Amino acid sequence: MSREQAKVREVGPRDGLQMVQRILSTEQKLDWCRKAAEAGIAEIEITSFVPPQVVPQFADAVDVALGAVAMGSFTPAALVPNQKGAERAFDVGVPVVNYVLSASEAHNLANVRRTTEESLSAFGAIVAMRDRAEGVRTHLGGCIATAFGCTIQGDVPEAGVLEIARRYAEMGADEIIVADTVGYGDPKQVRRILSAVVAEVAPLPVACHFHDTRGLGLANVVAALEAGVRAFDASLGGLGGCPFAPGASGNIATEDTAFLLESLGFDTGVRFEPLLALRQQLEIWLPEECFGGAIARAGLPKTFEYQR
Amino acid sequence: MSREQAKVREVGPRDGLQMVQRILSTEQKLDWCRKAAEAGIAEIEITSFVPPQVVPQFADAVDVALGAVAMGSFTPAALVPNQKGAERAFDVGVPVVNYVLSASEAHNLANVRRTTEESLSAFGAIVAMRDRAEGVRTHLGGCIATAFGCTIQGDVPEAGVLEIARRYAEMGADEIIVADTVGYGDPKQVRRILSAVVAEVAPLPVACHFHDTRGLGLANVVAALEAGVRAFDASLGGLGGCPFAPGASGNIATEDTAFLLESLGFDTGVRFEPLLALRQQLEIWLPEECFGGAIARAGLPKTFEYQR
Repeated sequence: MSREQAKVREVGPRDGLQMVQRILSTEQKLDWCRKAAEAGIAEIEITSFVPPQVVPQFADAVDVALGAVAMGSFTPAALVPNQKGAERAFDVGVPVVNYVLSASEAHNLANVRRTTEESLSAFGAIVAMRDRAEGVRTHLGGCIATAFGCTIQGDVPEAGVLEIARRYAEMGADEIIVADTVGYGDPKQVRRILSAVVAEVAPLPVACHFHDTRGLGLANVVAALEAGVRAFDASLGGLGGCPFAPGASGNIATEDTAFLLESLGFDTGVRFEPLLALRQQLEIWLPEECFGGAIARAGLPKTFEYQR
Repeated sequence: MSREQAKVREVGPRDGLQMVQRILSTEQKLDWCRKAAEAGIAEIEITSFVPPQVVPQFADAVDVALGAVAMGSFTPAALVPNQKGAERAFDVGVPVVNYVLSASEAHNLANVRRTTEESLSAFGAIVAMRDRAEGVRTHLGGCIATAFGCTIQGDVPEAGVLEIARRYAEMGADEIIVADTVGYGDPKQVRRILSAVVAEVAPLPVACHFHDTRGLGLANVVAALEAGVRAFDASLGGLGGCPFAPGASGNIATEDTAFLLESLGFDTGVRFEPLLALRQQLEIWLPEECFGGAIARAGLPKTFEYQR
């Protein structure tokens, strides 16, 4: 009997590294991708096309993208915050490009110095650019950051989140990604908002991007599953936050998310042994970083079995 | 509009301290209880009536119990693994006595050197002892440990868990407590087992006791809520396990559990400021222990408000 699939998408090389001071080499980043793919991860957000002076870690975005595309063992995705970034991503042929804006006006202004409306309008130009291009059609994700609340603005109106999802879909997005950028979401809110977004943009797929800032990351995954979501961003070892730093905001851990999904009966394709070996490699590469997650320290239950 | 109540029961002074090497003084334990009660915790598992040579930490069980009963600001509960323990708890007048056995035969044999059936039969004698006693009727909880799997035995048959719950209820238990002693449970299993137990013993209340060993503790709380459970054991700072020790198996953190429940709209009665201050006190008292939980490091969301 074949099981329903659910995807864990590794975003560590992008969101995990975003705040990390130590610059990983292009080769290390590609090694990370190669080994994650070997462990069964089918899609990896490999980099962000932002100016190097903004995030020095992504100065090698083009080289990482070229290397990842050449690898062929997984689907590389890149994050872009504007038209310029999208152009660079299209130029190197990244098959998935995720555009990001914040539902929180205050957060969007702080992040990209434009209103949410200005960012949203720019997506239209990106779609047009995509549609003009020759060759394989780029898959465009529309990401809604701070969809569950914002550290700057506080509450974020749910109607605004829905409206952004609707307009993304109208403009030609291939997927909507709803992100709890600051870890404010709770399972009730997640179920309510995701049910609404899924209904609004159907049959377009909807993915979620959760941070585990307040311990509710995996509970939020369960809530999103109930709303019909089947793809989740996560970073290996929960990289991107520190369990000891105040306000730290790491992604949900890839390995714990895969464990949860497999436990619930979903087929993630993930193999835990090589994934946890890769995590150990990462801990060596990034000795200053804090790695979280539970499966790496506790191991899988004795009763765990791949249901295939 | 009044909200539905959900209880977080502090079990740190019992389950949290069980494996801790440093012996807290009776006064410290009572101070913990006093401050937890001031922070809105209505029920606290204060100690375990086991032989001092087995768990030296609980050598002062009688004094802690007498002190807690005298306090009057919360409902003290005690854990007992056998008739002798129950007798001691009754003698000092602890109003809630939770009897524990393991659904896993192998775990029960390792823990109390009796079969699960022998332990279950002994509960009948404890109920009889309770019913013979004069004065206020003791509330008897029947706890089913390793209900979701066992590190020794592996799988634990769900029919056995249901059967134990049914017999506990028949014999005169006032509440059933279903415990994931080793952190093997996942939300799907929790919803399935708890729905069955709740239906089996209705209208008897059913509580849950989760450990966060593999990161699913709070997701399991949500699943149990959906099955109708409204009371959860937890320990402040997740005491009872270490995020860095292999196989460590701390309880879900009291403060994170309360945050989750409040976020979902339940009224826990908990005030976070004094609760987190108490946690800081505990960290000073127990410098060798690892404290976990997310709310203590990240703070409540800016958007959080007590809905009352």
